[in-house]
Amino acid sequence: MTQLPTPSQSISGEMITIGLLGAGNVGAQVARTLVEDRELISARVGAPVRLAGVAVRDPETPRDWKVPGELLTTDAEALVDSVDLVIELIGGMEPAGALIERALARGAAVVTGNKALLASRGAELNALAAHSGGLLRYEASVGGAIPILRPIEESLSGDRITKVMGIVNGTTNYILDQMDTTGAAFGDALAEAQKLGYAEADPTADVAGHDAAAKAAILGTLAFHAPFSFDDVYCEGITEVSADDIEAAAASGYVIKLLAIAEKHSAGQAPGVVLRVHPTLLPRTHPLASVRGAFNAVFVVAENAGELMFYGQGAGGKPTSSAIMGDVVAVARTVLMKKGTGTSVPDAPSISGEAGLPALPIEKATTQYYIDMEVADREGVIAGIARVLADHHVSIESMRQPGSVTVEGEVEDSDNGARVQIVTHLASEKNLSETVQALRGLDVVKTVNSVLRVEVEK
Amino acid sequence: MTQLPTPSQSISGEMITIGLLGAGNVGAQVARTLVEDRELISARVGAPVRLAGVAVRDPETPRDWKVPGELLTTDAEALVDSVDLVIELIGGMEPAGALIERALARGAAVVTGNKALLASRGAELNALAAHSGGLLRYEASVGGAIPILRPIEESLSGDRITKVMGIVNGTTNYILDQMDTTGAAFGDALAEAQKLGYAEADPTADVAGHDAAAKAAILGTLAFHAPFSFDDVYCEGITEVSADDIEAAAASGYVIKLLAIAEKHSAGQAPGVVLRVHPTLLPRTHPLASVRGAFNAVFVVAENAGELMFYGQGAGGKPTSSAIMGDVVAVARTVLMKKGTGTSVPDAPSISGEAGLPALPIEKATTQYYIDMEVADREGVIAGIARVLADHHVSIESMRQPGSVTVEGEVEDSDNGARVQIVTHLASEKNLSETVQALRGLDVVKTVNSVLRVEVEK
Repeated sequence: MTQLPTPSQSISGEMITIGLLGAGNVGAQVARTLVEDRELISARVGAPVRLAGVAVRDPETPRDWKVPGELLTTDAEALVDSVDLVIELIGGMEPAGALIERALARGAAVVTGNKALLASRGAELNALAAHSGGLLRYEASVGGAIPILRPIEESLSGDRITKVMGIVNGTTNYILDQMDTTGAAFGDALAEAQKLGYAEADPTADVAGHDAAAKAAILGTLAFHAPFSFDDVYCEGITEVSADDIEAAAASGYVIKLLAIAEKHSAGQAPGVVLRVHPTLLPRTHPLASVRGAFNAVFVVAENAGELMFYGQGAGGKPTSSAIMGDVVAVARTVLMKKGTGTSVPDAPSISGEAGLPALPIEKATTQYYIDMEVADREGVIAGIARVLADHHVSIESMRQPGSVTVEGEVEDSDNGARVQIVTHLASEKNLSETVQALRGLDVVKTVNSVLRVEVEK
Repeated sequence: MTQLPTPSQSISGEMITIGLLGAGNVGAQVARTLVEDRELISARVGAPVRLAGVAVRDPETPRDWKVPGELLTTDAEALVDSVDLVIELIGGMEPAGALIERALARGAAVVTGNKALLASRGAELNALAAHSGGLLRYEASVGGAIPILRPIEESLSGDRITKVMGIVNGTTNYILDQMDTTGAAFGDALAEAQKLGYAEADPTADVAGHDAAAKAAILGTLAFHAPFSFDDVYCEGITEVSADDIEAAAASGYVIKLLAIAEKHSAGQAPGVVLRVHPTLLPRTHPLASVRGAFNAVFVVAENAGELMFYGQGAGGKPTSSAIMGDVVAVARTVLMKKGTGTSVPDAPSISGEAGLPALPIEKATTQYYIDMEVADREGVIAGIARVLADHHVSIESMRQPGSVTVEGEVEDSDNGARVQIVTHLASEKNLSETVQALRGLDVVKTVNSVLRVEVEK
């Protein structure tokens, strides 16, 4: 740890007040974060934030997280008129559209994940924000938790994007993935997705590609700095994709994915952007081909950057709330600066040491380990090794003896020696290094060839 | 295309002047962009930008792009003292450090890709920027073109990151990938990488893990809001990884990657962060496992967002210049706003319609197509189909006849019918739809089962 001075983000006296519209799956999680993690969010913003109210249709509806009763209100307009920052999570066109318009018109900041509204009225609402001095952010509208709009708008703002291509609908990706891995027909895979909650009772918006088309319009608008809408997107869903199509594609090394594509066409014709959503064959080696289940990913091609891919969870209360809260912190910082009380500009790195987290020595690491040894070819070897591990509180996830057919521990190789490869469960670096030292001391262990760390998906 | 009003980013009268330090591989590309794409960059910033000078040691050195003679200077300090925004691409500790310090001390904005400097003096330089009102951005220092620092700092600012784990050194990833795919020994793979320009004559900084360790310190600092430095990172390189290790790992379903990891440890002990770089076994199903060759990728785990991955080109003049220019546009917008003349806040979406790009109808799309047909089982069928495609200017990339053994065109199936699957080269949607119509009119074509679009890696 360096001993150099570090900037501390002092919390200014100015309070940022937040009004939340809607307390469904995502809304309840956002409310919870704003209440339970208020200190963290305030530190990240650089000023105290306060959830001033949560507008809902019916205060009695059971929710994923119990919003404190004094915060609940049914008067969304009064809430919108009284706060610095509005989070819209009602969804759909109205009343969400009118409430966002109302907030922007008075110069407030708005964070939303409303893809349908953005895809049809995005240009108009962005124009309203620009004229009134309001702010409008909507990272959560495409790709759930995946930071994709901000990288396209900001990180790539000094480059020219030529193509954006994404798996942006988890329902259809789950269905196509099931068809690919199990050979199921479309109808059966859809029924399975409905049973698991990945598809709605009326799955039209997903399987007909409408949800993906809205996201294609939003991605295309930001990538090509031109105001595209839902109506500009050619759209084919996945209802006509057969098990036979998928099997035939697989036989030729392809996988079928529903892609949302916005691509610039300029060679030998009037330049413009084609926006399209349709089932697409991808070579299995393509980075998008391995995006499985309900995950999303967006592939971006830019003139200088080349190929980029952004991958993560495309839906769900917690992932989506992460994107909403990232926008909330960003616009709150900008609101502060506009009030003239911000202590840091929005794009200054925040290295506040807020958590006071020290760097720990490697001995504190816990990970899994792979140990590769040459051992004597005699009875009881494995039992001896296993005892050493157990004595050091290191448990075995898997053991392998190349060239041996038994898994019981006795080596059947003929060359007067054998090899043992162990993958441990999570262990501390300290316990592991003591284990390896002890193994080296066993007379049945000839050499320890390699000790390597293992990272697995949790 | 919507007909709604759109915000136009008016270019303010205020000029942003830029000084570039260094004109090597990345620097020459940045100079080129600032000169040749000046209008685009000015539009994205919202004010005219001007490259005021390029400081180099020797003006006579041949460069990737010929910097106009009047821009070249050997007086870096005078350049730093005269501009709004300094781009530092000299690299190394000095004179880069002193020049950045000089720029920040006078409240200027600095964009750099200098990982070594950031990893050792990042906390100090960030503190200096915070106190002087300067700006410091360094997206290009980790992962080349991949937007990774901004997503961590901003998009995830409302979440808690628990782990960051990346393939951040292209040289070592190329070497390990070669060892994995060809069975080569470390020395041979290194020699090959050197021959191809992926590894330097003295490869120590890469193969010993020092480059990755610097990046681990930068990633950890931003992810955990605490000032870590190079010295906090445990570091093991790849020189001890043997062909036998890689083969044994492969036999168990693992691939070996050099990972830079920053992970929070809090359960049952004093909380803190372990920062480490070492060869690591990853299951082949892990999203990082399929990152091949000189590509980079960073995997991030956050409490709400879950698992995210960012993938792209980790090095090279053009990719790195994309990250530099993204930072330049972002800090230039902030500089404008601080001057009180910015027309848009930095994080307002830029939907300026700058390129005037219209949405094109699907007929203008060009892509590859997959056509699956049932055809009559008789001679001359393929010739007839091929003629129809040729007549419509659609050429064939591959053709497949499941159940047939010939590839010459004559179907040998016995069941009085056969199946033909064609993947075309790039064709226009219009030509393709006319082709399909004509194919349906052929008496040897019984049915066209499916027509699907194909996207391949370029």
